[in-house]
Amino acid sequence: MIVRLPGTFPTRCRAVVHNGIVSMFAIATVKSSSLYEQTKSALAQVDANLAECGSSKDRILTALVFITDMSQKDEMNRAWDEWADRRNPPMRACVAAGLTGDSLIEIVLTAAV
Amino acid sequence: MIVRLPGTFPTRCRAVVHNGIVSMFAIATVKSSSLYEQTKSALAQVDANLAECGSSKDRILTALVFITDMSQKDEMNRAWDEWADRRNPPMRACVAAGLTGDSLIEIVLTAAV
Amino acid sequence: MIVRLPGTFPTRCRAVVHNGIVSMFAIATVKSSSLYEQTKSALAQVDANLAECGSSKDRILTALVFITDMSQKDEMNRAWDEWADRRNPPMRACVAAGLTGDSLIEIVLTAAV
Repeated sequence: MIVRLPGTFPTRCRAVVHNGIVSMFAIATVKSSSLYEQTKSALAQVDANLAECGSSKDRILTALVFITDMSQKDEMNRAWDEWADRRNPPMRACVAAGLTGDSLIEIVLTAAV
Repeated sequence: MIVRLPGTFPTRCRAVVHNGIVSMFAIATVKSSSLYEQTKSALAQVDANLAECGSSKDRILTALVFITDMSQKDEMNRAWDEWADRRNPPMRACVAAGLTGDSLIEIVLTAAV
Repeated sequence: MIVRLPGTFPTRCRAVVHNGIVSMFAIATVKSSSLYEQTKSALAQVDANLAECGSSKDRILTALVFITDMSQKDEMNRAWDEWADRRNPPMRACVAAGLTGDSLIEIVLTAAV
């Protein structure tokens, strides 16, 4: 069975659950000019999506983090470190890539449900 | 059991099936200068690979789309929206990254088989 | 059950094993100015991490390779081709993206354990 959480567009979903794994993406809902603030906002989306799927941050498996400006990575890390579960840290990779509009960060992640 | 679909190179495969999930990548086979045309071509590759694995686009779980020029994203979206199954929309993320040669798009995706 | 291999930072891990799949990232431990050398170093990390999880390169499913300079891709391919198991080639995608510090390559991969 595949469960899909509706997103903003009819041709894409926000999260998909299959075989005990949820895969999702998250961006900041408020487009602050601060990567720290956008990361906090995106991680709040992660928390909300996980809760909707019956999971939580201690069950995150992997995170692929795209940021637009690698020179600001410390700001992303600051928000990440405040948020992460240190007893259950995810595997995380972070690279710089172009994003849409005013987004400074996009997170793609998987978690066990 | 791991099933691998042979690709162009002996050290990489086009798709891999394991534990009920197929993971694959797709690029355009015809390198048009139009992102819309390249997206259509890449999505046709997706359809062909999925069929070869006994899956289909209504069972896609996740798609990670790399395009070389974010300012052309609408052209990718146009082809995507014409193609996607609106009753079963995948989780999709799209970022701008550098690609090889004349490729304007590369799609990495997973589907249930 | 989720098994996490400790990494350099308390808020991230190096590899995570869940449901018969290990997900990991690898970067070069020695930051040579040669992409060929960095790729060799990152692939040695892959081998070490896989061994630690009870897997090996013939069981790799997918690899997502980020390199900073697409014009040097042949150098990455040279190291990859020397290393890869040609009877069990992974699904691999390679894109150019920005990385941290002196890293020229980062590999994110999954393998069956």
